[in-house]
Amino acid sequence: MDALKQKILNEGQVLPGNVLKVDHFLNHQIDPELMYQIGQAFAGFFAGRNINRILTIEASGIPPALMTGLAMKLPVVFAKKTEAANLDTDFLAASVYSFTRQREYTIRVSRKYLQPGDRVLVIDDFLANGQALLGLADIISQAGADFVGAGIVIEKAFQQGGELARERGIEVHSLAKIQDMTDGKVHFCDDHL
Amino acid sequence: MDALKQKILNEGQVLPGNVLKVDHFLNHQIDPELMYQIGQAFAGFFAGRNINRILTIEASGIPPALMTGLAMKLPVVFAKKTEAANLDTDFLAASVYSFTRQREYTIRVSRKYLQPGDRVLVIDDFLANGQALLGLADIISQAGADFVGAGIVIEKAFQQGGELARERGIEVHSLAKIQDMTDGKVHFCDDHL
Repeated sequence: MDALKQKILNEGQVLPGNVLKVDHFLNHQIDPELMYQIGQAFAGFFAGRNINRILTIEASGIPPALMTGLAMKLPVVFAKKTEAANLDTDFLAASVYSFTRQREYTIRVSRKYLQPGDRVLVIDDFLANGQALLGLADIISQAGADFVGAGIVIEKAFQQGGELARERGIEVHSLAKIQDMTDGKVHFCDDHL
Repeated sequence: MDALKQKILNEGQVLPGNVLKVDHFLNHQIDPELMYQIGQAFAGFFAGRNINRILTIEASGIPPALMTGLAMKLPVVFAKKTEAANLDTDFLAASVYSFTRQREYTIRVSRKYLQPGDRVLVIDDFLANGQALLGLADIISQAGADFVGAGIVIEKAFQQGGELARERGIEVHSLAKIQDMTDGKVHFCDDHL
């Protein structure tokens, strides 16, 4: 998606430790119109697949997931990272290790919002080590639902997440796939931009 | 907003302890089209006020804030509840007491995304005890920005938040204002519905 890639090239900051800082439009401040285009792009790619529910993880997965839900006219469910006081007692849970925070946390989805036979599209902002995506795959499997595919805004192809997910048969579609950032600049996997 | 009130009446669940469970369209599963209408409603109400930034708190404030941002063509900033590894060191912070969780937590906004002179619209899903809203007011004040108003999806008018905020001069506009839920049913402050 060219508008996204251009924004990453123009405004993304590469920090030590292979960190790509895009918090001015993706995960702290959000550009709603770019996010709307991102939702349209995912809706176009995953059209005609009988998807009936979109799943993401709070918090920064919510904007692209919500816009995809708007474009596809589908409900969006977000997995919770903290034990919500009002969450149903009947929930699905998976353990996720965060490399960024170096700790394990639990993600939870109420069983009401992920039913057997559901055809689920996962949307997330980043795919790096893939732990969150595999945690969601675990929850979808526990629910007896079908994991149709994953739409990722930015994939760091030099980290293991994409490979891990594809090895498990998950169809991953990334709008911006980064090959490397070794010289402090972002290089995408496809040539253009 | 009638579509919202009707949805609360039809599908909201009143639980013991004055809890209104609306997690099937507002804060766990989200109805993107209703959320889009909510964004339009806030944009209409706060039009012509020279607002240049929208502020909310993760996670369930994000959907209505994002849709308001889309309608108003403005950037949306969400305050973080956890210490993000990649957050700038130069951030604004406020302490917020959660009655639901019975603990204090810190909300943070990078100083980059809230500038002196900014005219800020706060959007949030719920207004009950008002602690989150006052925390955001504190952050806006620290930034030297102007707090133009607050758009709330559901206000529990029988709790103190609305009064506390209005006493401090904050203009609060709530799309659904609940007078009481004493008999297990939702009664709105205005007569219709």
